[in-house]
Amino acid sequence: MAVAALAGVRIVLVEPAGARNVGAIARVMKNMGLSQLVLVNPQCDPQSAEARQMAVHAADLLQAARQVATLPEALQDCQQVVATMGRDRSLETQLESPRTGLPRLLTTANSALIFGREDRGLSNEELNYAQRFVRIPSSPAYASLNLAQAVGICCYELYQTTQEVAQGSQAIRLSPEVTEMMLTSEPLAAFEAVEGYYQQLEALLLEIGYLYPHTASPRMEKFRRLFNRANLSVTEVAMLRGILSQMNWALSAQSNRTVRDE
Amino acid sequence: MAVAALAGVRIVLVEPAGARNVGAIARVMKNMGLSQLVLVNPQCDPQSAEARQMAVHAADLLQAARQVATLPEALQDCQQVVATMGRDRSLETQLESPRTGLPRLLTTANSALIFGREDRGLSNEELNYAQRFVRIPSSPAYASLNLAQAVGICCYELYQTTQEVAQGSQAIRLSPEVTEMMLTSEPLAAFEAVEGYYQQLEALLLEIGYLYPHTASPRMEKFRRLFNRANLSVTEVAMLRGILSQMNWALSAQSNRTVRDE
Repeated sequence: MAVAALAGVRIVLVEPAGARNVGAIARVMKNMGLSQLVLVNPQCDPQSAEARQMAVHAADLLQAARQVATLPEALQDCQQVVATMGRDRSLETQLESPRTGLPRLLTTANSALIFGREDRGLSNEELNYAQRFVRIPSSPAYASLNLAQAVGICCYELYQTTQEVAQGSQAIRLSPEVTEMMLTSEPLAAFEAVEGYYQQLEALLLEIGYLYPHTASPRMEKFRRLFNRANLSVTEVAMLRGILSQMNWALSAQSNRTVRDE
Repeated sequence: MAVAALAGVRIVLVEPAGARNVGAIARVMKNMGLSQLVLVNPQCDPQSAEARQMAVHAADLLQAARQVATLPEALQDCQQVVATMGRDRSLETQLESPRTGLPRLLTTANSALIFGREDRGLSNEELNYAQRFVRIPSSPAYASLNLAQAVGICCYELYQTTQEVAQGSQAIRLSPEVTEMMLTSEPLAAFEAVEGYYQQLEALLLEIGYLYPHTASPRMEKFRRLFNRANLSVTEVAMLRGILSQMNWALSAQSNRTVRDE
């Protein structure tokens, strides 16, 4: 599979509060060949004079920015979702550098790179929607980057990757895993298909008493991390959902029999 | 030779006009482990509230920023000087990417990375002081990056290099030329020593009629480019200046003899 165009990569900002940041982000996105900006419940006006002043010749991109109410809406149709993290957290998952973690976004038709709030980043629930986690390396003396700088560095890395691929030196940059993904013709499942599977799984696990309502969330988080990491294909999601449907069928058959036996 | 600390790299801004840019640059420098900011004839107040607001926890770096009147003053003691360019120019020299062009700054005790004005970049005369030229790859649709973003991307690349060297994967990133420089124990000439040589050379070439005052500048530019590219060592500059001194001596001996012969 060829490298998809940068045009398929969405930059998703969760509740950005600085209009100047949003404008600067539009500019650096256009500098680096990206065009899809999605704002989740923005806390500032992306069409304000301040935003346009920072966007300079990327006012078109700012104008076309999509506003949505929730993060899942922003991720519709995405087959690869990467979240950025400003600081280390006790995630049971690996943090990758932009150089190794971002090229995967170029391997599918639709993908998203999520950036959190200027002050608080992303919530644990929001992190649950991502397959991979990227952290820009920075000095322990002052680790926290400005939001627009963080987006700029990631957009630069994405553009660099397309340049290097065009020049035929992609082997240096892409991990074996990503190279494999780019070669495979198996289509990856979109965000909402995987999400549907998680909801079906949770409902079943509650029904059979594996999960209890008050502990469902942290346990489901572990399942999400595991499956997100695996980059499920369309076929695999269909198989997994098939198992759940079959289980449901078997349970109801069992319950009918139990009723009959009584 | 080991990789010198990031502490030896100066970020030199020529006539920056935006206080917010200078503040944002201080922040991203500190994020990426850099500490020396030099402002050549700044057109804004780097201690203003706007600058400090953008610097956030890098106010110390902003406070310590050195202000000088001319670019040569900013480059004193530097053995490696790289200039950034925002657009392609018809330089008779190679433009490198940040990834290949910047690691050389880490090979000497003192080095400088020069950024031009927000609107006009660097003049040809200013470019003459640099040994290498770096251009951040960007989309032809909108190639011009915000100054703070450009500095951020370069600082990120420098920090990445030190991280990769620390992890022992430097071979991937460093060109053979830079690796050689890092292995050699021959000390490189400082900026002012090479500059002294150019001035001595120009004076001699004017004296012997090779140069004429009205054409001296473009011709000297070609010599500067050639020698800058060569990364002269202390010994080599001494040899080159020795030749000039000897020539001067021979000329004056000749002229004395001519006088005597008359």
